[in-house]
Amino acid sequence: MPRMVPQWLIEKKRDGQALADEEIRFLVDGYTDGRIPDYQMAALAMAIYFRGMTPAETACLTDAMMRSGELVDTGAIRRFKADKHSTGGVGDKVSLVLAPLVASCGVAVPMISGRGLGITGGTLDKLESIPGYRTDLSAAEFVRIVDECGCSITGQTAALAPADRKLYALRDVTGTVPSIPLIAASILSKKLAEGADGLVLDVKCGSGAFMKTPEDARRLARTMLGIGTRLGRRMAAVLTDMDQPLGRAAGNAVEVAEAIRALRGEGPADLMRVTLHLGAHMLRLAGAAPDLASGRAALRERIASGEALETFARMVTAQGGERAAVDDPGRLPAAGRRHACAAAAAGTVARVDANRIGRACLALGAGRTRVDESVDPAVGVTDLVKIGEAVENGQPLLVVHANDDDRLEQAMRELDGAVTVSAGEVAAPNLILDDLLDATGDA
Amino acid sequence: MPRMVPQWLIEKKRDGQALADEEIRFLVDGYTDGRIPDYQMAALAMAIYFRGMTPAETACLTDAMMRSGELVDTGAIRRFKADKHSTGGVGDKVSLVLAPLVASCGVAVPMISGRGLGITGGTLDKLESIPGYRTDLSAAEFVRIVDECGCSITGQTAALAPADRKLYALRDVTGTVPSIPLIAASILSKKLAEGADGLVLDVKCGSGAFMKTPEDARRLARTMLGIGTRLGRRMAAVLTDMDQPLGRAAGNAVEVAEAIRALRGEGPADLMRVTLHLGAHMLRLAGAAPDLASGRAALRERIASGEALETFARMVTAQGGERAAVDDPGRLPAAGRRHACAAAAAGTVARVDANRIGRACLALGAGRTRVDESVDPAVGVTDLVKIGEAVENGQPLLVVHANDDDRLEQAMRELDGAVTVSAGEVAAPNLILDDLLDATGDA
Repeated sequence: MPRMVPQWLIEKKRDGQALADEEIRFLVDGYTDGRIPDYQMAALAMAIYFRGMTPAETACLTDAMMRSGELVDTGAIRRFKADKHSTGGVGDKVSLVLAPLVASCGVAVPMISGRGLGITGGTLDKLESIPGYRTDLSAAEFVRIVDECGCSITGQTAALAPADRKLYALRDVTGTVPSIPLIAASILSKKLAEGADGLVLDVKCGSGAFMKTPEDARRLARTMLGIGTRLGRRMAAVLTDMDQPLGRAAGNAVEVAEAIRALRGEGPADLMRVTLHLGAHMLRLAGAAPDLASGRAALRERIASGEALETFARMVTAQGGERAAVDDPGRLPAAGRRHACAAAAAGTVARVDANRIGRACLALGAGRTRVDESVDPAVGVTDLVKIGEAVENGQPLLVVHANDDDRLEQAMRELDGAVTVSAGEVAAPNLILDDLLDATGDA
Repeated sequence: MPRMVPQWLIEKKRDGQALADEEIRFLVDGYTDGRIPDYQMAALAMAIYFRGMTPAETACLTDAMMRSGELVDTGAIRRFKADKHSTGGVGDKVSLVLAPLVASCGVAVPMISGRGLGITGGTLDKLESIPGYRTDLSAAEFVRIVDECGCSITGQTAALAPADRKLYALRDVTGTVPSIPLIAASILSKKLAEGADGLVLDVKCGSGAFMKTPEDARRLARTMLGIGTRLGRRMAAVLTDMDQPLGRAAGNAVEVAEAIRALRGEGPADLMRVTLHLGAHMLRLAGAAPDLASGRAALRERIASGEALETFARMVTAQGGERAAVDDPGRLPAAGRRHACAAAAAGTVARVDANRIGRACLALGAGRTRVDESVDPAVGVTDLVKIGEAVENGQPLLVVHANDDDRLEQAMRELDGAVTVSAGEVAAPNLILDDLLDATGDA
């Protein structure tokens, strides 16, 4: 094998050639241990932005980044292990409902979540609004809880895919974030390290999502399906709409409360539609349901029987959280001020701007712009109207939960015009845009 | 003015937009003083590789890099100051002949040369084979010698265009060397800092040159003409052929000896053709000749009168070199071994591979592959036949000068097949491919 020189590999990619597996591994390993400096990786990332990567290259990059750190050893869990990854959006509390719901059907759900930045807190921030809930489990604790409770939701350790953590920070400051192969490899290098046998991807698109168009969302989904399939995982992807927030609540404790209502069978229609659809895909991948319709039926049964909520309560307890807060969400942190925004005229809700709702939550303190910021668990938005609903003049369009007058004022400025009420009829948006099954033939 | 964020500017270039002047200055100044790290500049350079730069952007980049360090104050020199830049090639000793020749016509020639890497030594290495010759003049010494002798050839100081030195080193290891705007800005940021009023570019193309095709050479020439014109300099460019080495000698002392013969009127035809053509352009830019033909005639007169050689001798003496070596090139360093390569059959020289001759010189020790290597002044190749010349069976095609048997053997391997002798007639190549005058209308 010829000696590998980083700049020759950069030039190869720059000139549109595909890198060989051993070349990609050399670059990722060298970057992880510091032999390849940031400036060479930055030039390579920009060349990848312009030239793309083949499915084989992208899968190899993912695998190399995954293997740059520790892999979670889930061998002790004898059941099929399925997980879901979402590209994220405002009000996305699906994981909180989905993990215990699928687990209650006998499929193990080992879920490791990143913290990251966001307009509302991430899944971990939401769960941490339950007093005592730990998101810093060791790998051994995590595996034990998945085995005992059927599911666990915890945070990434520093040992998970360090190459991705380093590369992501570099891409953020070098204009190389919006590259489909780099996005896909970043997501899956962490997700596949947790040892799931099957993975369902919730790729959101629309004004409130990272991918603005169905075309981009579909490309990202297909790329990720191709990677997972090449790396021996059972994969499916669902394209979902994110033009308006999911559910009626956005924030942290307010979303946990909404998730608990969903596990009790009282969830908003859109949240249930997405959750049951993703869950049915997970059951199908696990061989626990022959098709999506019977998967959905099985999941509904577990909600009706109370098994789904009980699984959630057991997971919360196992991770140090107060079970009382699950039984009575009134015990979750609550904000000091509530302020309703009322409709100025009667009509139909035509538009709910997910970005503005998100920025309002950020202004209230529900999210963070720097990794070292803390979030306020209590603040956010509830009782949000949905597109297609009729409203009376003066009826609340949403309720703001705030702990600070200045922040409330900032949030109100963001919310001004966030909900549009029009005269005619408006149809509720189609939430599930497409199902993409196995990637066979895509590679 | 909005706050400038490096990654936003990288993204702007990545997306194909032109950067504003203040944005380019912000990037260059920030990179020079370390506020902008290598990894952001590497990503920007790769984006420039793919997206290019407008003439206005390229001129601004050149100006910003030039102003990142000291400018040579040539205000004390009252005459028109003209210089030449060549993109370099095997056997290119033009500067040694051209500077004193043009100076002997009353035009000042302030020539600052880079050391760089190369298959044979650069202009500075060649001159340093004259015992005592100093290439480390201070700016004040340099200006004084140009004023007194008409010309000076010295080395760059660290204070000259530090942004370029930093960026060039970065490009070298990030696959971003072959970008026309970056090459042009790199060359001219240093060249224009020496304060010449007019600049003639010798852009070489062919198998022995950096630019392999006339199209690439023309693009680089036009880009540099556009930059110089925008920055207020009088500019011209000549495209010259570099399929075979220039002259009959390649090395260091052997090229100085050939340059001295040229100044005595005994130079090889191709070297004289290029030198007189470039010199005539310099006189024309300076207003010292109305056209190229009268410029060439004036230059020939200065050779015939001995004024050109005397100017060279005065410059060498002023820079500490032994005048005796100019009067008698036999006093220059000489190698211990000489080995003639003979023709295996009679015929016409069809091809002289400049790359192989160059690699042979490098093997002998005439050039360097690392900046901290020293060169052997004595070694090289002489008596090289030229394309189109008839040779007898057994006649020498070239003579190798070596100081070491191992190196001689390596050089002989490189030289095997470097000269092709064929049966039919072969025309001597056209040396001057094109003249590009002022860049008006190119921008």
